[in-house]
Amino acid sequence: MIRFAAASLSVLAMSCAAHAQDVIESEQADFIIETVAGGLEYPWSIAFLPTGEYLVTEREGRLRVIDENGLREAPVTGLPEDLLVERQGGLLDVALAPDFADSRTIYFSYAEGTAEANNTALARAQLSADLTALENVEDIFHVNFEKARGFHFGGRILFNPDGTLFLTLGDGGNYQDEAQNPENHLGAVVRLNLDGSIPGDNPVIENGAPGVYSFGHRNAQGIARNPATGSVWELEHGARGGDEINILAAGDNYGWPVITYGINYDGTIITEEREREGLTQPIWYWNPSIAPSGMDFYTGDAFEHWQGDLFVSALAGSTVERLEIDGDRVISVEPLLADMGQRFRDVRTGPDGALYVLTDDFEGSVLRLVPAEAD
Amino acid sequence: MIRFAAASLSVLAMSCAAHAQDVIESEQADFIIETVAGGLEYPWSIAFLPTGEYLVTEREGRLRVIDENGLREAPVTGLPEDLLVERQGGLLDVALAPDFADSRTIYFSYAEGTAEANNTALARAQLSADLTALENVEDIFHVNFEKARGFHFGGRILFNPDGTLFLTLGDGGNYQDEAQNPENHLGAVVRLNLDGSIPGDNPVIENGAPGVYSFGHRNAQGIARNPATGSVWELEHGARGGDEINILAAGDNYGWPVITYGINYDGTIITEEREREGLTQPIWYWNPSIAPSGMDFYTGDAFEHWQGDLFVSALAGSTVERLEIDGDRVISVEPLLADMGQRFRDVRTGPDGALYVLTDDFEGSVLRLVPAEAD
Repeated sequence: MIRFAAASLSVLAMSCAAHAQDVIESEQADFIIETVAGGLEYPWSIAFLPTGEYLVTEREGRLRVIDENGLREAPVTGLPEDLLVERQGGLLDVALAPDFADSRTIYFSYAEGTAEANNTALARAQLSADLTALENVEDIFHVNFEKARGFHFGGRILFNPDGTLFLTLGDGGNYQDEAQNPENHLGAVVRLNLDGSIPGDNPVIENGAPGVYSFGHRNAQGIARNPATGSVWELEHGARGGDEINILAAGDNYGWPVITYGINYDGTIITEEREREGLTQPIWYWNPSIAPSGMDFYTGDAFEHWQGDLFVSALAGSTVERLEIDGDRVISVEPLLADMGQRFRDVRTGPDGALYVLTDDFEGSVLRLVPAEAD
Repeated sequence: MIRFAAASLSVLAMSCAAHAQDVIESEQADFIIETVAGGLEYPWSIAFLPTGEYLVTEREGRLRVIDENGLREAPVTGLPEDLLVERQGGLLDVALAPDFADSRTIYFSYAEGTAEANNTALARAQLSADLTALENVEDIFHVNFEKARGFHFGGRILFNPDGTLFLTLGDGGNYQDEAQNPENHLGAVVRLNLDGSIPGDNPVIENGAPGVYSFGHRNAQGIARNPATGSVWELEHGARGGDEINILAAGDNYGWPVITYGINYDGTIITEEREREGLTQPIWYWNPSIAPSGMDFYTGDAFEHWQGDLFVSALAGSTVERLEIDGDRVISVEPLLADMGQRFRDVRTGPDGALYVLTDDFEGSVLRLVPAEAD
């Protein structure tokens, strides 16, 4: 993969805000930034194919492939026809099934419906061998609430070792009180079998909608498993001052909007309450807000001193933050890439040990951070 | 106390960098900054007398009193004759004995000796009723290592509910390897009875010097008890990138300089190791460094949303940081007072609920943060 990424770099480096060979010094590693591909319309998520190519979602409703020649012009065909591109909605996360090598199954989340009646959906499909088409596309989950605005879809997917998956779901933005109502999926994280059915060992939540694993979330934009402990960390794009990391626990209510560290972006108060018996506290929150958008633990070999660290991308914050972790506790924070003047949509550890970052822009890029000494 | 602080304000506000009535907005509280007193030479610590006056140490070797008329010109007499004012050494911490109201006993730490042979000492004395003199001054502890330079004295005092006290001790700066050697007191925290004798229930440390409770510290500049859990938090001024908060545990070795998150200020590496079996990890560290200098939990009534928060003053960082705490975990950080362009030496909750801050300057001040709506 390193080989063809370098090839695409030579073609596409012009679109990158950073000069490819500039060494960026940071506290635990010096790195350079390579551009894997540019010209992506609001890239939202990236998945790494075992054959070395990348799948990238564009929020504007396209699934793209980057191969050894760079970004393929033609998008992958076969996305659902009811995919809605509207404000924060569109094509969202993409993830390879754990058995992708055999099944060629991918999962993706998207906004479905119309501007006046929409929700978040999860689908699976087979990716054709030539990476041009999705086949056997099948919706396996829909949020049971139709909303009339285009905000707070959630949409991040995480596969679990027990053969289930988590899907994060937003509160819909204009429906924040519904995050406290487990009868619908707004503001919830659902746990599903890989065919969309409900695991028999899901937590029992009074009046809980099928699949609800936890609720009281605002707009979860990241979910990742802590390699040191196995716990599942959820990244919540909060109100002003209320961006959170939570550790998911079966059946827990995380309190939005009854308790929060945030206030409305116009400065008005949501609630004075920051904690309440029976509502679970975050393990970390940002104040001031960074507008977090994606996260991953670094599990590669290339950056020795980043191993086990959590990386969080940010939109308004214009950084990728590196959080040092001890067990299930954040013990330090370092903002990276602040000089680029970019909004960032996602960050992932690549199978090659590079750290991949997506910029949030109508001419967005896939960037790759590699150790300075490796080149 | 509010009354006379306001009186001193009118006299002394000219020396304050902030305009007294400017409302500072911060994430959880709006406040104003009042100047309690200016014209202090490197103030290092403050203690609150039950009768409303303040004791302030000046590192340059004076103990001062602020009363309802402001800063008394004449220092308190009776400090030890072998007090050494040299670089980071001088008069350091001051704290009232738990039974001060009856005994009039105060404790203070100081650098003792000569520029070529010095150490940290702890003394107690009675403060005269008119606050002009120390009487019955008695050294109750000396570091058992004489150093030839004027760095890293530690010196913070904390009284424990069990009738003992903690005293923090630095590694001496040029003797960092001695922090790993429990045979001397460099880089240790000692636990003493109030007369300086060694408690029978101190931890047993192999070859440990009398009193050593924990070691492997660099230069602890703060120590405070978490009101939520009773644990004792220790603030360590680290190498570059290695400023730490530790939770003290009997007999633990905190690893300096064998493990550290910091590097030398000249950029050279101290060690690549960040953790090692048997060495205790910090619960928080700052990277980049802030050069922390003092800390206290906020336990007052005036700032409702600051209750239980940890405040840390910083020198090079030029901030007072507010750390939100959940149990024994830091969950968020907010820098305050960055606009003042000051170095800060200490921060304490006052008995009136105000937050007191000392600036680190040859014309240093005692500042008081009070809620904006209270005035």
